[in-house]
This record gives sequence, structure tokens and C-alpha cells, in this order.
Amino acid sequence: MSASSITQLPITKVSKAASTETSDSLAIEEPLEIRLEHGPTESRKIQNVSVTMRTPGHDVELAIGFLFTEGIIQKQEDITATDHCFIACAENKENVIQVTLSEDIVPNLRNADRNFYTTSSCGVCGKGSISAIRTVSVYDNVLQDDNFINASLLHQLPAILSKHQKVFADTGGLHASALFTANGELLLVREDVGRHNALDKLIGAALNENRLPLNKNILLLSGRASFELVQKAAMAGITIIAAVGAPSSLAVQLAEEFNITLIGFLRNERFNIYTAANRILIPDYETTH
Amino acid sequence: MSASSITQLPITKVSKAASTETSDSLAIEEPLEIRLEHGPTESRKIQNVSVTMRTPGHDVELAIGFLFTEGIIQKQEDITATDHCFIACAENKENVIQVTLSEDIVPNLRNADRNFYTTSSCGVCGKGSISAIRTVSVYDNVLQDDNFINASLLHQLPAILSKHQKVFADTGGLHASALFTANGELLLVREDVGRHNALDKLIGAALNENRLPLNKNILLLSGRASFELVQKAAMAGITIIAAVGAPSSLAVQLAEEFNITLIGFLRNERFNIYTAANRILIPDYETTH
Repeated sequence: MSASSITQLPITKVSKAASTETSDSLAIEEPLEIRLEHGPTESRKIQNVSVTMRTPGHDVELAIGFLFTEGIIQKQEDITATDHCFIACAENKENVIQVTLSEDIVPNLRNADRNFYTTSSCGVCGKGSISAIRTVSVYDNVLQDDNFINASLLHQLPAILSKHQKVFADTGGLHASALFTANGELLLVREDVGRHNALDKLIGAALNENRLPLNKNILLLSGRASFELVQKAAMAGITIIAAVGAPSSLAVQLAEEFNITLIGFLRNERFNIYTAANRILIPDYETTH
Repeated sequence: MSASSITQLPITKVSKAASTETSDSLAIEEPLEIRLEHGPTESRKIQNVSVTMRTPGHDVELAIGFLFTEGIIQKQEDITATDHCFIACAENKENVIQVTLSEDIVPNLRNADRNFYTTSSCGVCGKGSISAIRTVSVYDNVLQDDNFINASLLHQLPAILSKHQKVFADTGGLHASALFTANGELLLVREDVGRHNALDKLIGAALNENRLPLNKNILLLSGRASFELVQKAAMAGITIIAAVGAPSSLAVQLAEEFNITLIGFLRNERFNIYTAANRILIPDYETTH
């Protein structure tokens, strides 16, 4: 990420032995507004879709990733242009991204209102939320594909991610998402103050590089695995999610429903497999009795 | 929190030496819909205000805290009833909370749409977001009050919180917010998969107990301090926020603007003071040369 992801501020550092006036590196958090231009030539519309608090950098990827993982657009080709918006407030144009769709594309904005993402089914059961995702998922069918990896490879991934988490190293304040090949080769890393933004940036980048569906890859999350993160991964056709932190109950239910392998607590050479364990090849240990 | 905050699931535990079929405790994540009933008798309205992914438990406090910190209601007395909603989907009534307002109260629902929280000012600058909060804050004036605490007291708070973070101890998957007196006495702890929910539950509980404004207290956050958390704290008149994790740039700007003392990295007997350092009484160390 660029230097503009970090800012320096004066602070007072206090320990039991000393108090020091110094400066500290902080992760930048700023709002980003995502606008969508769409509709037939005679009646083009510009619509606000979301404002998210994000760390500046990879803003176009974030916007595209968000539109895709929310089911508002279905493919990269729907987009004809993306740009920071110059008509906004002149001094803050870097905080507005406008995504332009081709005339024949009708965005699915029913899903844009994140507060009420399901209307027809029961939106307040985990079950309802899961069915709602199924209706907008493009890659549901690819999740059955084979994607086997060795347990020993998984142990190595967090160290590889750490080496590439530049802003986290400086600020201690960022989440990361990383995409690996099934051989453990690192393809992409994205960081953000919001864990959902880090993943949207990653999926937006993968979409731009024509990598979707990501059914032959491994997604590594630097923190916990919530419902929202598994949902975004499912939208991109990801089959293996490994999180350094704990998963939630609904994240596990969704992973199970979509046949996604969900791994948690991947650290200190250990991990837990919550769903679809068959994709992880575990050596035959000598059993001790 | 109640036992219903945790669920048990079968997992495969893998280390370099062994693979074991066992079970694991997970933090429950389920959607909660917050509904508001309001308006004059002749035209009462029931309106969805938000759906949030939360850990069940303290749902009424979460709903009230959310409505208050979002500026939708201004005081506990605006509310005449709160209940799990029985007309929803019969099997999931525990995931809907309906808050009923008295007839003369007009909720400020312009702020309810979290995606577009500012319209009149520049909603996409940090500056605009900060001014928007000022317009809805009830306790802006109390933030100037004196609330001095000793540095040595701060060092003790994380250990006190850890002892009370029951669900985290079992699952490793929850955020916590805790409220202390200026003498370090623990008043309230709330946990949730979402850090904003943990704080809304805490502020909702404080509102129910008539504790607001919280200008003589200390708020402890188990993780990072984002803009959203400082915003909610500001709404409740909190003057001292101590976070175990890192703050973001916009969190610091907002704290500075509202004269809130913001402390980060409170762990291992150290901390950083980012804003309003005058409230923290630091002993005169012997300076080493």
C-alpha cells in the first residue's frame, strides 16, 4: 500500500518507568463513497450505493469488489469506467469513486441496502440470510470442484502474510486478506482498517485480473472469520478459507452450506477445521495409545 | 452473557504431530433486526431501522444503545416499550426487537441510513463526518468536565476486563467494551462478535440505568479504536477511552475535536496517549540522562 495509508501523530508514550513525548504511525481511516452510474442513454442515473470507512489505497478495487460481493454487478465486463469523482467536493474527490456500467446492465440494487438484505425470505434467521446469498451467487456451482492442499502447507501461510503486511507492521492497526495458490504461492495481499474492505479490495483486484472464480486458491484472513467474510468469499467462488482468528457460528453454517473448507486459529503450527475437512490432506500420524 | 452466546460444533484439530476429532466452542453470530414503532395515534408506523449481525444476549440494550448512539432517539424516556417481536417469523422472534416510542417523540431517522449519514455537509471528508456527529450529540457540552485519573490505574484495567470476558475465554471470538469508574471499579461489561454492538449494548445498559452522561467514567475497548467507536462514545458523553489495540487516524481526529482523552495499546504495563493528555496524571519520573 502507498504511504498515504499511514499518518504520523504526536503522542505521549507512558510506561511504569517513563513518559516520553514522541510520534506514532497510525493507519488512516477515511470515508469512501461508492457511486454507480447506470441505465439507458436517455435516462442515465448516478446513485450513491455505499459509504464505507476505509484505509485509502486500492479504492477502485474496493469499489468493484464491493459491487461484486454484494451481488450488485455480476462480472468485470459490466463496468465501462471507474474513476475518482471530480464533481464531488473539490478537496475530497479522492474519497468518492464512481463506477460506470454499460447501458445494457441493470444493477441488482435490491441487495445494496445492507441493512435489509433479504425481503422475500426470512431475513432475520441465519437460514434466511444464507438462502439470500445463494440467489445472487454466480459461482455456487464451482464450489464442488476439487482443491486439495497439504496440512503442512497451511502452517506456512501466516508467516508469508506477515512479511507482506507492511502497514500493519508500522501501525498495528490493519486487517489483511491474502490470496494463495494451492501450492502456497502468494498472489495478492490487501490491507484495511475494515476487514470486509480488505477482502473487497482483494476480490476487486482478482476480478480485474480475470482470476475469478477462485476455486483453486486459498484465502487467508489475518483475523476472525465472520458471516460477512465467508459470504464475500462464497461470492468469489473461494473453496478454502483459513483464518488466523476464530470463526463465528454463522460463518461455519454458511461455509458448510456452500461446501467451503473453513479453517480457524491457524497459528503456532496448529489449526482447526470446521467444515469440508476432506480438502485438507493430513499425514498419517502414528497414533499414540 | 447467557449460555446461548456459545455453541458447540464438531471440528478436526490439526497440529504438526496429531490430528484429533473433537468439539469446539464458537461465539454465536445471528442477525438482529431493530424495528421502531412511532408516530401519533392516528398514524402509528412500524419501521425497520437496522439489521446487525450480533451475538444473542442483551438484545434490548443493543437496540436502545444503537438508537441512542445513532442519534435516532435522545433519551431513555422517549421509549414506552421494548420487546422481542412476536409477529415476525414465528420461529425467529428472538432475532427481532421492537422499540416503541411515545406519541410525541419524532425519531431522527435521517441518521438511520448508515450508508449516507451526512447529506447537508460534506459526508465524504473526515471533517464532514465529524460535524455531522456534532449536530446530533446531546452531551457535547459535558465533555469539558474534569475527569482525572492516575496512569497507574490504567495499567490495571485490562486484567480486570479479562477476568470478566467469559465468552471470549471460551471462544476466542468476541470483542468487549467495559465501563469503569474513575477509581477503576468495573461497572459494566458487554461482549459481541461486532465491536460496535458490544459498545451499543454497554451504552444501552448505561442508558437503562440512568448513568448518562458517562463523563466521569473510563471506557475500555478490548480491541482497536475506530471512528465508529469514538463516535458512539462521544454520543454518551464519555471523556476517557482506553483501547487495548491501535486507534485509526480518524478516531484520533474525532477524539481531539470532542476533547476526549484517547489511549491506545494499553497492554504490558504501557500505553500511548493520543489526545487530551491532561486528564492522565503521570508520576514525576526521575529522568535518566
